Amino acid sequence: MTEQYKIYEATLTGPDQGNPYRDIWLKADFTNDTESFSVNGFYCGDGIYRIRFMPMRPGRWKAVTHSNATALDQVELVCDCVPAEEGNHGRVLTESQVAPGGDFPGQNDERRFRFAYEDGTRFWPFGTTCYAWIYQPEEIQEQTLATLKNSGFNKVRMCVFPKFYTYNTADPRLAPFEGNAAEGFDFTRFCPAFWDNLERRIRQLDELGIQADLILFHPYDKWGFSKMDPETDLFYLKYAVDRLCHFKNIWWALANEYDLMPWKTEEAWERFARVVIGRDSYGHLRSIHNCLTFYDHTRPWITHASIQRVDVYRTAENVTRWRQQYQKPIVVDECAYEGNINYGWGNITGEEMVRRFWEGCIRGGFLSHGEVYVQYPQIWWAHGGTLHGTAPERIAFLKKIMYEAPGDAAPLVLTPQNHAENWDVPCMCTGDGSWFLYYFDFMRPAFRTWKLPVGGVYELELIDTWDMTVEKLPGTYEGDIRIALPQKQYLAVRMKRIACR
Amino acid sequence: MTEQYKIYEATLTGPDQGNPYRDIWLKADFTNDTESFSVNGFYCGDGIYRIRFMPMRPGRWKAVTHSNATALDQVELVCDCVPAEEGNHGRVLTESQVAPGGDFPGQNDERRFRFAYEDGTRFWPFGTTCYAWIYQPEEIQEQTLATLKNSGFNKVRMCVFPKFYTYNTADPRLAPFEGNAAEGFDFTRFCPAFWDNLERRIRQLDELGIQADLILFHPYDKWGFSKMDPETDLFYLKYAVDRLCHFKNIWWALANEYDLMPWKTEEAWERFARVVIGRDSYGHLRSIHNCLTFYDHTRPWITHASIQRVDVYRTAENVTRWRQQYQKPIVVDECAYEGNINYGWGNITGEEMVRRFWEGCIRGGFLSHGEVYVQYPQIWWAHGGTLHGTAPERIAFLKKIMYEAPGDAAPLVLTPQNHAENWDVPCMCTGDGSWFLYYFDFMRPAFRTWKLPVGGVYELELIDTWDMTVEKLPGTYEGDIRIALPQKQYLAVRMKRIACR
Repeated sequence: MTEQYKIYEATLTGPDQGNPYRDIWLKADFTNDTESFSVNGFYCGDGIYRIRFMPMRPGRWKAVTHSNATALDQVELVCDCVPAEEGNHGRVLTESQVAPGGDFPGQNDERRFRFAYEDGTRFWPFGTTCYAWIYQPEEIQEQTLATLKNSGFNKVRMCVFPKFYTYNTADPRLAPFEGNAAEGFDFTRFCPAFWDNLERRIRQLDELGIQADLILFHPYDKWGFSKMDPETDLFYLKYAVDRLCHFKNIWWALANEYDLMPWKTEEAWERFARVVIGRDSYGHLRSIHNCLTFYDHTRPWITHASIQRVDVYRTAENVTRWRQQYQKPIVVDECAYEGNINYGWGNITGEEMVRRFWEGCIRGGFLSHGEVYVQYPQIWWAHGGTLHGTAPERIAFLKKIMYEAPGDAAPLVLTPQNHAENWDVPCMCTGDGSWFLYYFDFMRPAFRTWKLPVGGVYELELIDTWDMTVEKLPGTYEGDIRIALPQKQYLAVRMKRIACR
Repeated sequence: MTEQYKIYEATLTGPDQGNPYRDIWLKADFTNDTESFSVNGFYCGDGIYRIRFMPMRPGRWKAVTHSNATALDQVELVCDCVPAEEGNHGRVLTESQVAPGGDFPGQNDERRFRFAYEDGTRFWPFGTTCYAWIYQPEEIQEQTLATLKNSGFNKVRMCVFPKFYTYNTADPRLAPFEGNAAEGFDFTRFCPAFWDNLERRIRQLDELGIQADLILFHPYDKWGFSKMDPETDLFYLKYAVDRLCHFKNIWWALANEYDLMPWKTEEAWERFARVVIGRDSYGHLRSIHNCLTFYDHTRPWITHASIQRVDVYRTAENVTRWRQQYQKPIVVDECAYEGNINYGWGNITGEEMVRRFWEGCIRGGFLSHGEVYVQYPQIWWAHGGTLHGTAPERIAFLKKIMYEAPGDAAPLVLTPQNHAENWDVPCMCTGDGSWFLYYFDFMRPAFRTWKLPVGGVYELELIDTWDMTVEKLPGTYEGDIRIALPQKQYLAVRMKRIACR
């Protein structure tokens, strides 16, 4: 029996001569008599072939295989699917994919800007970055998982290919292709042990409720993986998608800093996108991440904008503009990292990191974390291992606050009418005036005044986003109010209507 | 005898009937047989008329008056001018006015972006803001002067008209026009006592080496000064310029937040500019300050852009762009104020204030300070009095550092060639590679690497912009260097070439 949204896997035996990775194809169409999903099988070495399928609905799913190898052709497969258990919500998609149509009263259609699991449960990504964690020694990989388990992060940006970049220059023990750095890689054959480990890690992340935001191409390379010929790119990409698309927690990041690989044309990226769409019947989320030049995130295949900020100073504050521009979920996957590396992308304070998270979230975007403290043998952003910074626990606190927001809360849109009251302090609120969350950022007013919506009786809470406290202010509030504030940075005020007069 | 750049003043007696402010005109052309300057006299009440003249060159200057009043006509005036004494540098102008032409090797022509006294001495404005200080009780005005004397500020933004705005709502004891709030003002007659006090304060500022950045119109008003009819606007403006243009430390700010007076058209502002240009023979600096919408600072009459930032987050960092856009000195007269008021324009920390100053200065701009701590009876930004914040002494430290920069130091212009090395850290440097000043801002790297210009031997200093220390790093430096840094925010590194190999 296969649990809904989990993986059914059939193992077949077939040809092991020649190059089955290249020469043998295998596919199947799973159907429950109502819906049908095409999947591609893949070769695992030693004459072993696998076909995977993620059933999206309970019941009996059946398929017959097709292959150019007789031994793999016309095999009948049956997947009996039982309903998802508690905590298993399926894939993450954009909320408008999950619940299309419908505006929230008085707000723009927020759903286009948000994520949800396919069972409708809201998903707020709070990501982190461990580019090359699967290339570290086994015990470090285990440590990374333990660290993630105890963190609030629910998405990890990670590379398929090994990474060659400062502080991370070792040759890989295993790589997607057979071979090694000393003797060279065979770009016609995949390395089953590598893929087994990658899948094991993706599965372990899923068990922790963490999305694997998988980077398919990146430029940090000395082994040739970033400069394979176009045919090899597609050979690799197809294999990756055929093997991995069945994991419910997969997100496809076509590239990290795509523009640092100028030898890959826009047409190449668009072709890669078509391959991913064509072979991933489940339609997992798709993005592409920039260095200095944004990709055109309006392209239909891009489900959400994965952004590295290009302005050193104004980062998550741009979420408002990017939402308008792209009309999709905005994930600021790099807003700089907490740490002390020599580069400006990785030496901000925990305070600034957390401030950027709050700014971006209140504005209806999402952010990813990273940490680059160079004095440790493992640097989280490259190796994983353990976290040393001050931001992660505050990000977990923010995550809790965001998950407490009403489903119809959305960023306040500045208008000429409300500008004078709201220009300086971002606000998330519901369209009916029943809930407000103001974030004071680096400002530290001695007090603030509000005109509460007429007829409403409110409770107010003072949130210290750094000390991670929520303090209910005494009494209830109506009409024109003046609230003393503790003249500290990084405060927020949350208002909930508890009665109407 | 009149000292060069100081004021010669002749007192004449004439008609005191009717309304001499409106009905009598008086002018004179001063000449030293080489140059000639037209000045307008003005009525001071009680039948007293004055003609002022600021001689720009030593020697004998002579004039004959002209007037529609016989008693004031054909009076011969002689001004014997002696050379400026030490410390008297004359007016502040843009550096290209003072020393036109000439590029610094390897840099853009920086002179268009800078200020200098007319004797060629460099002037770096480090302004502050005391809008209504001349409307406070006498002892507070004196306290303001004492505070300024002990500060590093060398420019003060101040209003001619009284100010009506939060924390400053009292009726004025004296105003530019005769009358009072209770009985109304006579918009046809000026109040000599007001102007005498204003002039005394401008003169006292000059004695402290402080420029009076005089705001001629502003919207914070309940007495009618912001909504006078067009003729009265001009009547007032002419009187102000005729009286005040002779002070060497005058800067004309046509408005504060001009766009909050939408009833004054662009044509009105342009007309005001023509009046100022036409009646101020000395050509003092001229600007106009915005709230939400910049004035077109490319207009020829505008000598420098006086900017209130319109972005809450990215402020002084925009100096680079504004320089490109306006090709004039950029003075960020409001980048938000240190303090704790409820409004986002006045509740940033001293750290953030100082950070913005450094960012703006390294980028070749200038900033003004302001302070709004609402718990004190006098709030500096409105009343003057005393300073309570943490920024002023750090701004004075920055001023010292800036005045130590070589005359040909200019902001490093980012290019595709130097982008990878310099994108994250602003730098001021000389074109010949003999001097560099890098500012690390909110970043706190554990180290930094540089490729020093080939053949140069350098001394390095670590500057803590918050602790106000300059620490010479041991030894000398050549070629590729790696400098450990103390992993704090707000550091700078200064490099001086001491030898060439």
